[in-house]
Amino acid sequence: MTRSILPLTGRSLRAPKSSCVFIYDDSKAPPPPFSAPQGLASGFFSKPRDFSLPNSSWGPEMMRLYEQYNSQCGEETEGGENREGPWKRLPSYNRFLKYATGGVYLSRMIHKKARLFTRNNRDQGATFEYVLFFNSEEDKCVGVFQAGHLLEGPPGHVHGGAIATMIDTVIGTHATIACGPVLTANLNINYRRPIPLGNTVLLESSVDKKEGKKVFVTCKMTSSDGSKLHTDSTALFVSIKVSQLLLGS
Amino acid sequence: MTRSILPLTGRSLRAPKSSCVFIYDDSKAPPPPFSAPQGLASGFFSKPRDFSLPNSSWGPEMMRLYEQYNSQCGEETEGGENREGPWKRLPSYNRFLKYATGGVYLSRMIHKKARLFTRNNRDQGATFEYVLFFNSEEDKCVGVFQAGHLLEGPPGHVHGGAIATMIDTVIGTHATIACGPVLTANLNINYRRPIPLGNTVLLESSVDKKEGKKVFVTCKMTSSDGSKLHTDSTALFVSIKVSQLLLGS
Repeated sequence: MTRSILPLTGRSLRAPKSSCVFIYDDSKAPPPPFSAPQGLASGFFSKPRDFSLPNSSWGPEMMRLYEQYNSQCGEETEGGENREGPWKRLPSYNRFLKYATGGVYLSRMIHKKARLFTRNNRDQGATFEYVLFFNSEEDKCVGVFQAGHLLEGPPGHVHGGAIATMIDTVIGTHATIACGPVLTANLNINYRRPIPLGNTVLLESSVDKKEGKKVFVTCKMTSSDGSKLHTDSTALFVSIKVSQLLLGS
Repeated sequence: MTRSILPLTGRSLRAPKSSCVFIYDDSKAPPPPFSAPQGLASGFFSKPRDFSLPNSSWGPEMMRLYEQYNSQCGEETEGGENREGPWKRLPSYNRFLKYATGGVYLSRMIHKKARLFTRNNRDQGATFEYVLFFNSEEDKCVGVFQAGHLLEGPPGHVHGGAIATMIDTVIGTHATIACGPVLTANLNINYRRPIPLGNTVLLESSVDKKEGKKVFVTCKMTSSDGSKLHTDSTALFVSIKVSQLLLGS
């Protein structure tokens, strides 16, 4: 429902730049010392695992779409120069904690074992394999998802809730880029065609309009070659202060 | 998206009665011999694990609601008599394959490693813990869900896609009881209040109307004590022949 403003990177992996966004991966290392939040911007957060990078479970269609967008991404060259590109790849981690600049909310925010729903399985290719790209000039966000065998609903096909999860991931990220921290207020999905397990799908979202704290987003999900429409959807997000989320729970 | 017509049971675990619905759990045993489908209704499907029964991860609120509905369920007594009750508990497995009465579709239906999205994690309490009950007199379906730590979206709270998954599970089951095999055609969710990780929620669905192949369902999700509204939603399902699903993929 809420999304971080993710740091935008090209091909190279960079540490998060925003002082109010921090990301870590404690799948291998012990949890960082949250009692010392002054260290959040450096040191032990320098090398989280970025799940949006290719792994051996990615099939040909997933790789093809990844390369299609990644080849148009800005990146830092080996010589240290920045290459321009219309797209940015959005790195993805198995958890984000936001606005943790002090200890006042930490005790409520931290569930040491919590993991992002879409990144909670370590078995590569078993659930959601995905990467998101953003084009600031066109204000477009795309997500490339490969549906693993643990996402089954109808026999041999992806569960409707897993499809909704893919959509929420793309449009929630887009709304957050547009407006900062948001909560989903409405999600309306038309399911047009089932998705076989193992298939790769392409999601494309657009921000339709902003009205005060509201942002309206639409999203279309097609087969990887664009020939089949799987879903079309609309969503409304509302800007929030994260303190609202923490105090209101 | 599609749901089986689940066999309805009380407290006691029974083998599925319908000849066109079969369910198995191959998490411990080797896969059954699908090349011999004539054996589907007996033998190796007699003792699947029913995930809707309590386990040690269920908290007090989950247990309270389970007992509240289960105490009103019809059941077979030790003496072999049937006790009447308005509610039925719906057993839940980690996969269903349906209508597999012949070999013609099996090769397309069977993904040996596939698991139901909501039952794909063996770590009790980590993702979705839930049980569904159905009241045929009132035509009501309820779901009691406990949200595990691997369902995180906003820090410390349940992902919007996981919430949609809970809703789809309850209303999809209800629509299937009402109309047989269905596909979700539309799902429209209003998110009213975030759900903290670990909380138990109660979902209640009603069939509003049926029109030909269409069935309209509504669903309300509240805190376990009913005092807080988390979501309200509407959905449209369309009856299908399963062969459509298999041939259309």
